[in-house]
Amino acid sequence: MTLHESRIDTDAAASRHAHVNLLGTPVEPLASERRGVSVADVSLSASGFWGQRQAVNAAATFEHCAAWMEKLGWIENFDRIARGEPTVDRPGWAFSDSELYKLLEGMAWELGRQYDPLLADRFAGLVSRVGAAQDPDGYLDTAFGHDGLPDRYSDLSMGHELYNMGHLLQAAVARVRTVGIDDELVSIGQGVADHICTEFGADARDGICGHPEVEVALAEFGRAVNEPRYVAQAALFVARRGHGSLPVRPLLSAEYFQDDVPVRDATVLRGHAVRALYLTAGAIDVAIDTNDSQLFAALESQWLRTLERRTYLTGGMGSRHEDEGFGDDYELPDDRAYCETCAGVASVMVAWRLYLATGKVEYVDVIERTLFNVVATSPAADGTAFFYANPLQQRVLGESAHDGVNMRAEGGVRAPWFDVSCCPTNVARTLASLGAYSASVEGDTLALLQYSEGRVSAGGFVLDVATRYPDDGVVTVTIEAAPEGEATLRLRVPSWAAGARIARSGASVEAVEPGWADVRSVFAPGDVVTLHLPIEPRLTWPDPRIDAVRGSVAVERGPLVLCVESTDLPAGAAIDTVRLDVSRLPEAHGDGAQAAAVARTFADSGSAILPYGRRGANGGSTPFQLLFVPYHRWAERAPSTMRVFIPTTEGDRRAL
Amino acid sequence: MTLHESRIDTDAAASRHAHVNLLGTPVEPLASERRGVSVADVSLSASGFWGQRQAVNAAATFEHCAAWMEKLGWIENFDRIARGEPTVDRPGWAFSDSELYKLLEGMAWELGRQYDPLLADRFAGLVSRVGAAQDPDGYLDTAFGHDGLPDRYSDLSMGHELYNMGHLLQAAVARVRTVGIDDELVSIGQGVADHICTEFGADARDGICGHPEVEVALAEFGRAVNEPRYVAQAALFVARRGHGSLPVRPLLSAEYFQDDVPVRDATVLRGHAVRALYLTAGAIDVAIDTNDSQLFAALESQWLRTLERRTYLTGGMGSRHEDEGFGDDYELPDDRAYCETCAGVASVMVAWRLYLATGKVEYVDVIERTLFNVVATSPAADGTAFFYANPLQQRVLGESAHDGVNMRAEGGVRAPWFDVSCCPTNVARTLASLGAYSASVEGDTLALLQYSEGRVSAGGFVLDVATRYPDDGVVTVTIEAAPEGEATLRLRVPSWAAGARIARSGASVEAVEPGWADVRSVFAPGDVVTLHLPIEPRLTWPDPRIDAVRGSVAVERGPLVLCVESTDLPAGAAIDTVRLDVSRLPEAHGDGAQAAAVARTFADSGSAILPYGRRGANGGSTPFQLLFVPYHRWAERAPSTMRVFIPTTEGDRRAL
Repeated sequence: MTLHESRIDTDAAASRHAHVNLLGTPVEPLASERRGVSVADVSLSASGFWGQRQAVNAAATFEHCAAWMEKLGWIENFDRIARGEPTVDRPGWAFSDSELYKLLEGMAWELGRQYDPLLADRFAGLVSRVGAAQDPDGYLDTAFGHDGLPDRYSDLSMGHELYNMGHLLQAAVARVRTVGIDDELVSIGQGVADHICTEFGADARDGICGHPEVEVALAEFGRAVNEPRYVAQAALFVARRGHGSLPVRPLLSAEYFQDDVPVRDATVLRGHAVRALYLTAGAIDVAIDTNDSQLFAALESQWLRTLERRTYLTGGMGSRHEDEGFGDDYELPDDRAYCETCAGVASVMVAWRLYLATGKVEYVDVIERTLFNVVATSPAADGTAFFYANPLQQRVLGESAHDGVNMRAEGGVRAPWFDVSCCPTNVARTLASLGAYSASVEGDTLALLQYSEGRVSAGGFVLDVATRYPDDGVVTVTIEAAPEGEATLRLRVPSWAAGARIARSGASVEAVEPGWADVRSVFAPGDVVTLHLPIEPRLTWPDPRIDAVRGSVAVERGPLVLCVESTDLPAGAAIDTVRLDVSRLPEAHGDGAQAAAVARTFADSGSAILPYGRRGANGGSTPFQLLFVPYHRWAERAPSTMRVFIPTTEGDRRAL
Repeated sequence: MTLHESRIDTDAAASRHAHVNLLGTPVEPLASERRGVSVADVSLSASGFWGQRQAVNAAATFEHCAAWMEKLGWIENFDRIARGEPTVDRPGWAFSDSELYKLLEGMAWELGRQYDPLLADRFAGLVSRVGAAQDPDGYLDTAFGHDGLPDRYSDLSMGHELYNMGHLLQAAVARVRTVGIDDELVSIGQGVADHICTEFGADARDGICGHPEVEVALAEFGRAVNEPRYVAQAALFVARRGHGSLPVRPLLSAEYFQDDVPVRDATVLRGHAVRALYLTAGAIDVAIDTNDSQLFAALESQWLRTLERRTYLTGGMGSRHEDEGFGDDYELPDDRAYCETCAGVASVMVAWRLYLATGKVEYVDVIERTLFNVVATSPAADGTAFFYANPLQQRVLGESAHDGVNMRAEGGVRAPWFDVSCCPTNVARTLASLGAYSASVEGDTLALLQYSEGRVSAGGFVLDVATRYPDDGVVTVTIEAAPEGEATLRLRVPSWAAGARIARSGASVEAVEPGWADVRSVFAPGDVVTLHLPIEPRLTWPDPRIDAVRGSVAVERGPLVLCVESTDLPAGAAIDTVRLDVSRLPEAHGDGAQAAAVARTFADSGSAILPYGRRGANGGSTPFQLLFVPYHRWAERAPSTMRVFIPTTEGDRRAL
């Protein structure tokens, strides 16, 4: 890849301003051979997997989040700053402002996707309350810098001021890219960005924020409004990191903040997972826009090692609760997996940037895995309750869902809101902008990256996509309009889809390997290209260095990780005594991407004072049918105990 | 067991006070069929395993701890209170007072064991600095209740005032039992105990301390000075707990404080491990002294379930870092095992009380396991560095030992001191009083419970014990004096010692089963009883519900858990690729309780973007000899990666 190819122009974008295009995309590298598509150009059908979630997000989640933030006073915090009231008893953590900004970002993408006057009013009302709290010099924060509050930037480690303003800039990016720069939120954002450059510029305060976010935000806002100073400020924040400048305290080490090693010298992601991933996304943006190929190579290498040794089967990241952080290599316990929903969102941000820069299909595979098995797992079907952590094993029944704020990031049930409530709004902004990640354009090639029922207009194509994916593996693409002359329609064949086939109307069926399946042709309206992905359930084995799931196996089906829930077990069978018979492959079962396999339970020999002793042979139960259901819907029917990796009948010698 | 048998009189104890005996023991239940022996009556030889550690403790650890506490100002805190200085910038956590008290307790037992005028002076000097800080009403704390500090008892959850005073009472117990009640520290303790009863009595403040300790301390101090009010106050604290009275906050739930369920209704230990165990010890004391057999049964049942499902092979307890707590049943990851040294000390406290109450040999087995594999693991050979957490697996090399305070409870190297430094002084007081746990008297039976070279005078016997245990399994007991008439010498045969034999001079060798081996006789000076315990290395398999070590096996030798350290691996072999061939048993190797077995390493197949995929067969290395060394000495030669449980060649299918 050459980083500095010239920007690909798009005639699909309108412009209300000389140097700003309404690209409709969250990420626009200064130089790239490929770009995503506009949120306006992808219409996901409400009958498809993602379209349905997008509809629930718009219909329920936005207002749910706004109502909680009103109820808890997190929005009132802005009003109190605007009124100049002392705020000694300010409710919420220092980062509560960011929740409103992430909600605004989600609303902005939603409005760009599909205009709704009621939502537009709600959005405008919230923006004006935010704007009223902005200081004349652009500073904007409700937890510092005003009467009754600590001084500005007096706690860079944990104060989250730059983090908050970063999220505001991300919301402003969504506005620039969908309505242009003549917008109240964009103006607020410009004030914020200018303030940050003044306060933290090369000749000013030599500081960084404990929670990265401002880097990725400044870079993209700079791209969006064509202001290189903002990108340069992002580069400065990236370069300053890793020199131990942030004060540490017990459990909050330099590693926690990624302040232990300079970004370009690190070998793997470490410390707090969301921080590490946001930082990586911003550093990639900086590397691309400053043509820093050495930094880019370092970041891609860190990412690959992180995938190879510190990532769960679901795509989830973060295996330690105590610092919400990455563990050591191969430290991937299913039961204590943290796999924060926000880390899933952030992983998609990183993988998307790397895909745009390299075109590697593996990164799109990772995005699919993470979307289906982390991001889709968090929200309840009605969009008003969420998982914060996404473990792959639940040993005890969760407490019944309740209406109150959940203090804990775990518990086996989705909660309406959290004391630290970063995940719901992160899901909301991701779902609203999802279309932009579902296809890309590269020269005369339109690549379909994610499959969900809907319509895509890009690269001169208008495509109707019909599919029940992931419940079914058939994706039927009907060309409704095509560019003049020869062009390529590129379909992603996921890494698991050995045996995939592709058929074009009037041509014979061809086998395709995992990777890219390119159909190059002069297309005509009415042409149909059909992709057949085999979604028979399959066994997936862990690397032998992952101690936590040794002797165990998972069942996947298509892009979905499946799981076993106690809800589906025979009466009297405890989930930790189930053993899978792997001499027979699991089979597809019923609707909805389920699978069934043969299992036994072992009898509890009991009685030893400690759970260690001589090798014994316990009699196992008679075989029974074990049902596997999509992991992303676990605990939806009722609180359950659950496992993704199931020990096999050969996995331990005292079992059967 | 009948709880209210009358107290067994001892003629071995002198008395300086009408109702106080110099029993020399840490625990004296109001009613018990058996009692421990005086620290003065057990002399452990410095050439034996425990005697050597006791000597290092006295020669190095006491002064090491005192020097750190002086250096950090934790002792000066008392002087500042005494001088009435404002203490806004008080150094140390709220519980730093307790470190001095635990050190004083250790010194007191040491003085009771073996008088040393220099140590006595040092002790007296420290006691007088403590005493000078006591308020007229008995209250004693340097972090609350004085000028510049928060009010007394304004943070019962985390303020640790009662916890601190509890440790002071434990030190006072050591004085009553070794020098009697006419002692400055005992007087301070009486003031403290009276203050607590006044402040928290039945008609006064309805509070409990977030960190249990005052319960076990008040009970024992009440026993020691014959003051039932103190025991009643302990009972009141136990009864008040479990009703959610302590304010909680994120990560510090009611469960963390054992304030979620009343003590008598709980089914298992949970929450912060040290808190849970100290509480259990105190509640057992209360149950015994108030003849509350229902409470006692609940506590024993909780303990058994905890052993069966929440205890590591080492005897270690606590599998979560984020709250230093117990995990769910069978959640026992080796790599993230917390197994705090203090939890090991506290587990011995619980097991000892249950042994005194029930006479069950299993509880003494647990004490031995915990002493050798948790308590002995913590201190470095020179007694001036310590492990705080005791994981059973170390994935990355620890950072080199340094002279500074270690902020973290982990890291793979022993540290001289900690920011939260509870463990060093807990080890110190345990080693100083260890003799008291090594034998017990029950009627005309003297039971030898722990084996270490030395001399025991109790129950009318004087015994010389010669043994290289645990490096060797032969324990030779020579009777130097014996009671008149028939008596029983009882020897413990550990649960692992199948095939043990016992021989009495002039009699034939007899096989004995694990449990108690009783020799009943009219003994005469010169009689010799020899116990032969088989200490061949053995394989120990985990319960199939422990996911973290499925497909893996441990090697034990006698009472010692062994481990593999990277230090001993062939060049180029990474510890996470080692696989044990269990078709051959490990064999004894060299000196010092080592073992050797046959192993292979597997080749890294690498290259997958995620560590999950199809089942593969990798070529393994040629077999090599794998060395196992005692776990309690790991990381002593150099920082190392380490494992206790080793995957077997049959444990995962991609391995070999």
